[in-house]
Amino acid sequence: MKNVAISGFGITKFTRDDLPIESLMASAVKSLFVNTPNLVQKDVDAILTATSDSSKYLSSITAELTGITPKISHNVESLCNSGANCAISAFAYIASGLADVALVVGAERFDSPGLILEWDKSRGQFRHPIYWSSIFTKSHMRRYGTTKEDLAIVSAKNHKNALANPYAYFEKEFSINDIMRSKNLTEDIRLLDCSYPCSGSAAILLTSEDVTKRFTDCPIWITGIGQRTVSASFTKNHDFTAIQSTREAANDAYKMSSKESSEIDVAEVHDAFSICEIIEVEDLGFAIKGNGSKYVREMYDTQNRRINPRGGLLGSGHPLGATGIAQIIEIVQQLRGEAKKRQVEGADVGLVQNMSAAATSSTVLIMQS
Amino acid sequence: MKNVAISGFGITKFTRDDLPIESLMASAVKSLFVNTPNLVQKDVDAILTATSDSSKYLSSITAELTGITPKISHNVESLCNSGANCAISAFAYIASGLADVALVVGAERFDSPGLILEWDKSRGQFRHPIYWSSIFTKSHMRRYGTTKEDLAIVSAKNHKNALANPYAYFEKEFSINDIMRSKNLTEDIRLLDCSYPCSGSAAILLTSEDVTKRFTDCPIWITGIGQRTVSASFTKNHDFTAIQSTREAANDAYKMSSKESSEIDVAEVHDAFSICEIIEVEDLGFAIKGNGSKYVREMYDTQNRRINPRGGLLGSGHPLGATGIAQIIEIVQQLRGEAKKRQVEGADVGLVQNMSAAATSSTVLIMQS
Repeated sequence: MKNVAISGFGITKFTRDDLPIESLMASAVKSLFVNTPNLVQKDVDAILTATSDSSKYLSSITAELTGITPKISHNVESLCNSGANCAISAFAYIASGLADVALVVGAERFDSPGLILEWDKSRGQFRHPIYWSSIFTKSHMRRYGTTKEDLAIVSAKNHKNALANPYAYFEKEFSINDIMRSKNLTEDIRLLDCSYPCSGSAAILLTSEDVTKRFTDCPIWITGIGQRTVSASFTKNHDFTAIQSTREAANDAYKMSSKESSEIDVAEVHDAFSICEIIEVEDLGFAIKGNGSKYVREMYDTQNRRINPRGGLLGSGHPLGATGIAQIIEIVQQLRGEAKKRQVEGADVGLVQNMSAAATSSTVLIMQS
Repeated sequence: MKNVAISGFGITKFTRDDLPIESLMASAVKSLFVNTPNLVQKDVDAILTATSDSSKYLSSITAELTGITPKISHNVESLCNSGANCAISAFAYIASGLADVALVVGAERFDSPGLILEWDKSRGQFRHPIYWSSIFTKSHMRRYGTTKEDLAIVSAKNHKNALANPYAYFEKEFSINDIMRSKNLTEDIRLLDCSYPCSGSAAILLTSEDVTKRFTDCPIWITGIGQRTVSASFTKNHDFTAIQSTREAANDAYKMSSKESSEIDVAEVHDAFSICEIIEVEDLGFAIKGNGSKYVREMYDTQNRRINPRGGLLGSGHPLGATGIAQIIEIVQQLRGEAKKRQVEGADVGLVQNMSAAATSSTVLIMQS
């Protein structure tokens, strides 16, 4: 297996703009070319797009719009973790030797058809993601005493972190009180405990160890990969206080990279709702089970950016296909020491956790400088 | 790079039935399990689906419906060659070492949104594929003297071949006269020169060399892969008597497998329209340029099944995402010597050519027993 590096990136500001999906994708690729002066179109062996948009042939359209005639070209869809899945697909093309240089482009419009879980008949009328997050929230509160204030702290921390992220949708700080007083959507969840569907795009350049030096002096290597799909229907889940798919994916990623959770310096985790981050820091091994709220509260109190330094989904917005790629870009910037006001000091090992569809599937990546 | 084998398959009859896409996918997987007695659900590391259907999360839904909890799970979309792209993506996961056992499932409904080329503004109102095939037809006629009877021979041959394919949509022989008298859709193309959108599904099992023996005594190895996207818009094409994407993909596939066109014993080629097969046998190197019609006519006259033994898209029907997988299954059966009435005697080396969107992208696979 050849080693695979992330050697460049491009990203657009997340907005509510009504832009065609093709334009979003092309903008991220153009930004990547600007940031990667040694890259020319003919270098690109593969272009993979990640989106839940229903337009077809988007990878080839993006190729044409940006002057690329790739060998490998297709879209990758797996709802909210399309981005990380797409990056791993590109990793496989390179690690296997079928490609040396791959562009991975994630994008979504604010009105993505991936936002509603039409396919899950087990939910009856409760098809909006808020219902599954509400069940996770109530279960975690009941078993571990998690409070509404704990949820608000996640959101306050991530909105605050997002203030230093020039690509974030939100540009406003919210106090714990603001969040707790925001509209109640279910008994347990308020408006500001939810990530916000928006338009955005993000692109990364993956390269094999053989050619990486041509494109960057500071490659970030993907050293661990873990993935798991436990089901597609939410009601197959047997424990609503844990995310089994994330736990299994994390175990595999740690094993592949020979790293332990205690060695992770910085992590982007999939906070689609406030409760997600609390459960994820437990299932990724950063906090013991039941102590997720305490762990996040400590990050907030000490202004520690270790978890979701770019502001996560809550602070940055959630353009489905772009999210996993934007998470990866944040860890690249952190490990390069280029994250400016968001920088976590001395970050050498980073983690990305991206998931889909009521946490039924998860992807975990470990990255090192 | 690990060697990758095709170790099993399952397929459903192509129909005009109004079945949910999830049911189509699950049916092909169930057929594959029946055909592969040593395979159990927990063996499956990856499930990749190939479709242009707009439903989301289909790989994970198919996994749940068939009792699989994979590591890797996503859909692959690239219009009509989604199937072959998906197989190559699975090849990469296995060749890189990220998976040992991958299920690849292609499916489409007869009313797929991939049938109309909404995205190609360069076509103006001429968005139906019939228009690009009509331009290819007229160009090839003008330069090489190809006739309407030559086109009809392709269709007659492939419909006849399909009579021995139990999964084909068509179950009727058409004479050259029947085809030439079928409805004129454009000046050059008649109804029976066009493949037929239908519902269908097909699945293959890919395995690494390390585990292949557990599943089959007659593995078929993928030894050559070539892919090329030259554009997304049809009007970027500069020569309408050749398919540049296929020519380049074929060159790469021959090179990777150290085979020449003269060594191919049997081939499934993408005859979306009659003219396609004529041009493809030229660009794959089976006939010299301009002699495609003569070559196909000889196959017809001598009842030689070398090209499109299952009946191609013209005879079998064209459920977009399933087509590339069904092509691969035919070559597997041929190379195993299990193709019954369709068998090409002594077939050791086979080729699949699958393409998309006015031939703007092509995939070529070379397979060996």
